[in-house]
Amino acid sequence: MAGNTFGTLFRVTTAGVSHGPGYMCIIDGCPAGLELSVEDLLPDLARRRPGQSKLTTQRDEADQPEIWSGVFEGKTDGTPIGILFRNSDQRSSDYAAIRDKYRPGHADYTFDARYGHRDYRGGGRSSARETICRVAAGAVAKKLLARAGIRIIGYVVQIGPIRATVADPTTITLEQVEASPSRCPDPQTARLMEELIETVRKERDSIGGVCELVAVGVPPGLGEPVFDKLKADLAKALLSLPAVVGFEYGSGFAAAQMRGSEHNDLFIPAGHVHPPPADPAVPALATPTNRHGGMLGGISTGQPIVCRVALKPTSSIPRPQRTVDRSGSPTEILVKGRHDPCLLPRFVVMGEAMLALVLVDHWLRAQCCRLQQLPELSPSRPATSPHPRPPDG
Amino acid sequence: MAGNTFGTLFRVTTAGVSHGPGYMCIIDGCPAGLELSVEDLLPDLARRRPGQSKLTTQRDEADQPEIWSGVFEGKTDGTPIGILFRNSDQRSSDYAAIRDKYRPGHADYTFDARYGHRDYRGGGRSSARETICRVAAGAVAKKLLARAGIRIIGYVVQIGPIRATVADPTTITLEQVEASPSRCPDPQTARLMEELIETVRKERDSIGGVCELVAVGVPPGLGEPVFDKLKADLAKALLSLPAVVGFEYGSGFAAAQMRGSEHNDLFIPAGHVHPPPADPAVPALATPTNRHGGMLGGISTGQPIVCRVALKPTSSIPRPQRTVDRSGSPTEILVKGRHDPCLLPRFVVMGEAMLALVLVDHWLRAQCCRLQQLPELSPSRPATSPHPRPPDG
Amino acid sequence: MAGNTFGTLFRVTTAGVSHGPGYMCIIDGCPAGLELSVEDLLPDLARRRPGQSKLTTQRDEADQPEIWSGVFEGKTDGTPIGILFRNSDQRSSDYAAIRDKYRPGHADYTFDARYGHRDYRGGGRSSARETICRVAAGAVAKKLLARAGIRIIGYVVQIGPIRATVADPTTITLEQVEASPSRCPDPQTARLMEELIETVRKERDSIGGVCELVAVGVPPGLGEPVFDKLKADLAKALLSLPAVVGFEYGSGFAAAQMRGSEHNDLFIPAGHVHPPPADPAVPALATPTNRHGGMLGGISTGQPIVCRVALKPTSSIPRPQRTVDRSGSPTEILVKGRHDPCLLPRFVVMGEAMLALVLVDHWLRAQCCRLQQLPELSPSRPATSPHPRPPDG
Amino acid sequence: MAGNTFGTLFRVTTAGVSHGPGYMCIIDGCPAGLELSVEDLLPDLARRRPGQSKLTTQRDEADQPEIWSGVFEGKTDGTPIGILFRNSDQRSSDYAAIRDKYRPGHADYTFDARYGHRDYRGGGRSSARETICRVAAGAVAKKLLARAGIRIIGYVVQIGPIRATVADPTTITLEQVEASPSRCPDPQTARLMEELIETVRKERDSIGGVCELVAVGVPPGLGEPVFDKLKADLAKALLSLPAVVGFEYGSGFAAAQMRGSEHNDLFIPAGHVHPPPADPAVPALATPTNRHGGMLGGISTGQPIVCRVALKPTSSIPRPQRTVDRSGSPTEILVKGRHDPCLLPRFVVMGEAMLALVLVDHWLRAQCCRLQQLPELSPSRPATSPHPRPPDG
Repeated sequence: MAGNTFGTLFRVTTAGVSHGPGYMCIIDGCPAGLELSVEDLLPDLARRRPGQSKLTTQRDEADQPEIWSGVFEGKTDGTPIGILFRNSDQRSSDYAAIRDKYRPGHADYTFDARYGHRDYRGGGRSSARETICRVAAGAVAKKLLARAGIRIIGYVVQIGPIRATVADPTTITLEQVEASPSRCPDPQTARLMEELIETVRKERDSIGGVCELVAVGVPPGLGEPVFDKLKADLAKALLSLPAVVGFEYGSGFAAAQMRGSEHNDLFIPAGHVHPPPADPAVPALATPTNRHGGMLGGISTGQPIVCRVALKPTSSIPRPQRTVDRSGSPTEILVKGRHDPCLLPRFVVMGEAMLALVLVDHWLRAQCCRLQQLPELSPSRPATSPHPRPPDG
Repeated sequence: MAGNTFGTLFRVTTAGVSHGPGYMCIIDGCPAGLELSVEDLLPDLARRRPGQSKLTTQRDEADQPEIWSGVFEGKTDGTPIGILFRNSDQRSSDYAAIRDKYRPGHADYTFDARYGHRDYRGGGRSSARETICRVAAGAVAKKLLARAGIRIIGYVVQIGPIRATVADPTTITLEQVEASPSRCPDPQTARLMEELIETVRKERDSIGGVCELVAVGVPPGLGEPVFDKLKADLAKALLSLPAVVGFEYGSGFAAAQMRGSEHNDLFIPAGHVHPPPADPAVPALATPTNRHGGMLGGISTGQPIVCRVALKPTSSIPRPQRTVDRSGSPTEILVKGRHDPCLLPRFVVMGEAMLALVLVDHWLRAQCCRLQQLPELSPSRPATSPHPRPPDG
Repeated sequence: MAGNTFGTLFRVTTAGVSHGPGYMCIIDGCPAGLELSVEDLLPDLARRRPGQSKLTTQRDEADQPEIWSGVFEGKTDGTPIGILFRNSDQRSSDYAAIRDKYRPGHADYTFDARYGHRDYRGGGRSSARETICRVAAGAVAKKLLARAGIRIIGYVVQIGPIRATVADPTTITLEQVEASPSRCPDPQTARLMEELIETVRKERDSIGGVCELVAVGVPPGLGEPVFDKLKADLAKALLSLPAVVGFEYGSGFAAAQMRGSEHNDLFIPAGHVHPPPADPAVPALATPTNRHGGMLGGISTGQPIVCRVALKPTSSIPRPQRTVDRSGSPTEILVKGRHDPCLLPRFVVMGEAMLALVLVDHWLRAQCCRLQQLPELSPSRPATSPHPRPPDG
Repeated sequence: MAGNTFGTLFRVTTAGVSHGPGYMCIIDGCPAGLELSVEDLLPDLARRRPGQSKLTTQRDEADQPEIWSGVFEGKTDGTPIGILFRNSDQRSSDYAAIRDKYRPGHADYTFDARYGHRDYRGGGRSSARETICRVAAGAVAKKLLARAGIRIIGYVVQIGPIRATVADPTTITLEQVEASPSRCPDPQTARLMEELIETVRKERDSIGGVCELVAVGVPPGLGEPVFDKLKADLAKALLSLPAVVGFEYGSGFAAAQMRGSEHNDLFIPAGHVHPPPADPAVPALATPTNRHGGMLGGISTGQPIVCRVALKPTSSIPRPQRTVDRSGSPTEILVKGRHDPCLLPRFVVMGEAMLALVLVDHWLRAQCCRLQQLPELSPSRPATSPHPRPPDG
């Protein structure tokens, strides 16, 4: 249980470090028959890629995936999908200075404390480059979800003190999000955010923010009632990403100030626009408000799933900072290398990927929860069939 | 993967519903040799129990645990710890009205959508009475953690708009928390909170709030670097509790507004007061500030773990609310029964339990991560030993 | 991972010891909607029960199950099925002598070596009474399998040197098996076996044997191709039962002597008697011989699954045996209590239960392996639906 | 749970097919600090390699591993070990004939039945080339086990009707095994076996056999008492290998004919030659006979672990065989390609690898089963430490 696998029925296992030969990603449990090629992975990988705009780090990473297995003649074949990424552009020398010093806000110290020995080149296993595997797996998950009518979108709603107003999260399109380098779908706020990030960058500093993630078309009934609540698995998935320090769904922390009479979303019969329950005996309902963020009792209601995560400011800032070295002596460190002054724009697609991975896993898990979903003995198929015994058995 | 098991090495599996014969809890993976008796479980169960004060529901549940296995002659024996709770005081009639109507804010509709069939008596499996198993398991986890020097405490920091000021989370004692029915350790704020809850109750309404959870004495090095980050598993654990709608650790959502230069916690050499890394070659460090909430890169730093969760207001309010029935027709519902106007006071011990379960699991997981921790071949123990072969084998 | 849970999608977790208050069994993952009551569990529990005939131990165990949860209004409801068994008839005094002595062939020494502390009353956790939970869970699994057209049967084919000839394993009925106390379906051989067991019992000794287990109606396509091959999970399941020392399927160990030209089963088109593949594009095939025991590449072929397990003779024999005590000194032990002189007759239903648990698990796992099995977005269900945003979210 | 991962604490996940770009193997959970390089993997990979002798297939596979992660500066660093194998020598044309015909004894039909779509080139995912990943992971496991004093050895004891006599399995050395191409440690029998294999090959046929696997130096106490018995996990591990059709340990199927009085191994105090229990309060015992194959109650006793597996004859034989094609019509097939006439010689190292993987997993699992093994709060490490609260948290 060393923690490099995510999911139960749709399982992602990864290996690799930022300054080794590359990354491996194995997706186990993808159903056979899904059309899939490298091209399906490229758009999201491009959105994750460093160097997209002046808001992001100018590293030029080679993000070309190679599918080594699991796809045959253009379709998944039920066997594990193996995806490979080769590393390039490794300026290991940038990291020589941090070999014996603990960078504030980073995992350097905690890796040493845990393993007694760490790959100090570029963060090693804790480098955010590891998310390349998650984004690739997320692209596969999104393709599967799309077939089931589930669409996922993420966008930036806050950078530092600047907040965007998004009236209806479910109407935001990918085009709106991608229109601005900040990935805030409100163009005017986006411009303010970009100015702030640029200012922060010039001041050799960094800034935090909030990303909102939405899934529409989720049928009611996804999620397990007790420990594996959908909200719980979403929280885990998103907090497993670097720099995420908070998660909320629906009204979230604002609910702490509310009364039941104002917080409860009241049910109404749903029209044709809502995904109905799989069981035709159960009515399709809706709630005109969605303070519950699409989940009640840990199970999806059919309303859009809406959640938000807070990211801390990038820990690597191009300023000298006081710290301690491996011998325990106080020292000063100046972290070189190229780092995003704000993680939010590139985070969006990572958040979407984790949301997609959780939903596809729970969507598969939901296929076996009622007897009516399962194949039954047909009258033409008798349960026994006579067989001569093998002479040697 | 039906989601009624929590943990990897310290695993808790539960079954039971609020209006059946009772609950079963199986704890698998508790090391042998821990002194344990029913008395160890009672204090936390009493803190979870309904009817403790006028702030909580006046139901009188029988919360007496029976240990059926896993403890022999006063000590755990390595086999699964089976704990049983019998239900009593079942007023099923209270729930007859909700049989065919979906309570707003509850899991009634989502259970039907998922399973096509649900136990409508008192919430069935989604009743918060299920947390009785978690609190019992949490008490076992706390006892194990105490032996390792890890102490856990939770308390209420916000009810509706009223917020407490807790200067140093690590100094709060159980006595301070238990001194007020609201479980807010600041006596003056506690009184205001209790007045607000009483007002809300009289107005046939409910109110949300925030609970802060703290673990001190956690050694550096707990947590897996990628998917099973300590922060991720904490988020999952806490979001798996009913009514929790948000999680943050350290500076949390406030970090979204901060700059890296003000957010980074700087390392200093630690004195003797801090838990050192298990590996003597790695120095003991500290950070005078703790905006990182005790975790970097998903791994504990040795600083106190500090996190907060937001709870929505109780969904059951003694007022008529519009809803829909099982046939899809609009109707009105009046939820009877006795319900807490505010979940926070009783939540504290549930939150502590989940924090304890995550920490004990990761503490066990951390025992095998370095070769030096593991037993080695001693020179007096040769690897081979001659044996005559059994004549028949 | 302390090993008290079995299965992935259909998961059984157990706790309990022979001389404590009783046993708990939690079945997680049973689909909702299966009609289930205590009566469904009784027939197999009666087959497992001690004291059925003079061939089995005369202990009178109370084997009455109580279903605590997971069944509502006569049907499973998707939540975990909790089953309870209370112990009675505990003659702990019988076991006082073995407190400090290690019984040959038993787990006494290995429990001490592992946990440093053990429940010495009647075998504690390693008592075969633990199989009561497996048999109850197996009865639920069988009921689910029957609905899918899969029938399971086991019987005794060897006791000591006496072997039965079973020409066609798939024609054996439960009635034939239950007709003799030895559970050998060949009446004449059964009588010889029963005489041998009686002789052995009188000689204060015990005897081993072989049980054959068969599943008919298994559709082709169950089993995962690499590590979780159906044959591998069957082997694990059956070897996890006490006293089992060998497993083979199809031609088994006899295959070691065979040539490929005589071992390969040749395919022919199948008539209507065989379960067809789920995918209509794949033809239904059969093999007139079944040396492959119904599995190729670890996946079911649609032919009957046929396997055999060897059991050692009962370790508890009412004779003095040399051994060592807890202080390491040589001593002599006389194991009292009532023990089966041959485990096979009562083993049959335990073996069937484990076979059923593996098949039901893989049957559920097979529901998500092809895209065509999964629900798709219907044109009438758009992927997005406009929602006003909650004012507070 | 798609079955491409093996183990719990020491977990191996694989992907790849015989005629794609190559294989990926991710080992998660290897403790940090183990010296490891590609050279450690080569000897066992060479033993698995085709074309070693005329007894084995003459394919020339490129079996050079590349370690992509998990090893830093010559030592494992606790992060997942990623190993890559590139394929070469792909004569896809050899397999064109089998695209639409089901090879007898192979997984062609069952893959189609399961997934509706299969990689027909050289067996695809069910190719035995997949074991290259297992052998590499097994080499890592063996290195870890060697440090704990555990040594693993396998050898051939039967080919067709020819059986070897191995008086004491624990004295067999790797040199003795590798001395003959058949990997039978008895030189005279080895010669007979090799002659038989050569005869069979000339007759365009194949032959089965039995491999014995031994682990010495295993400390008492490995294995979980109920479902995850050591014997159960060994059975699963070995049956998960291609062509294995039977497993037994200790006296195995021969025990079915034995009486308790002759089968029970009696305990004696052990001298210094045996691995003692981890708990010094428990004495070191031995049994002069080892009919129990080193395991009682599913837990290791400290005696050598001895088990045997039966392999069927190679299914691919260079003769025309009757079969059915994908449309369901009868046809004839002639399997081309180069295939081992007997799988046993190359199987030995695969069996050793699986034995090593199970033992290393249970060895890690055994590190947390007693409280005395775990670190305790030292008096100099207080459980609390005062901290000023971060102003923003």
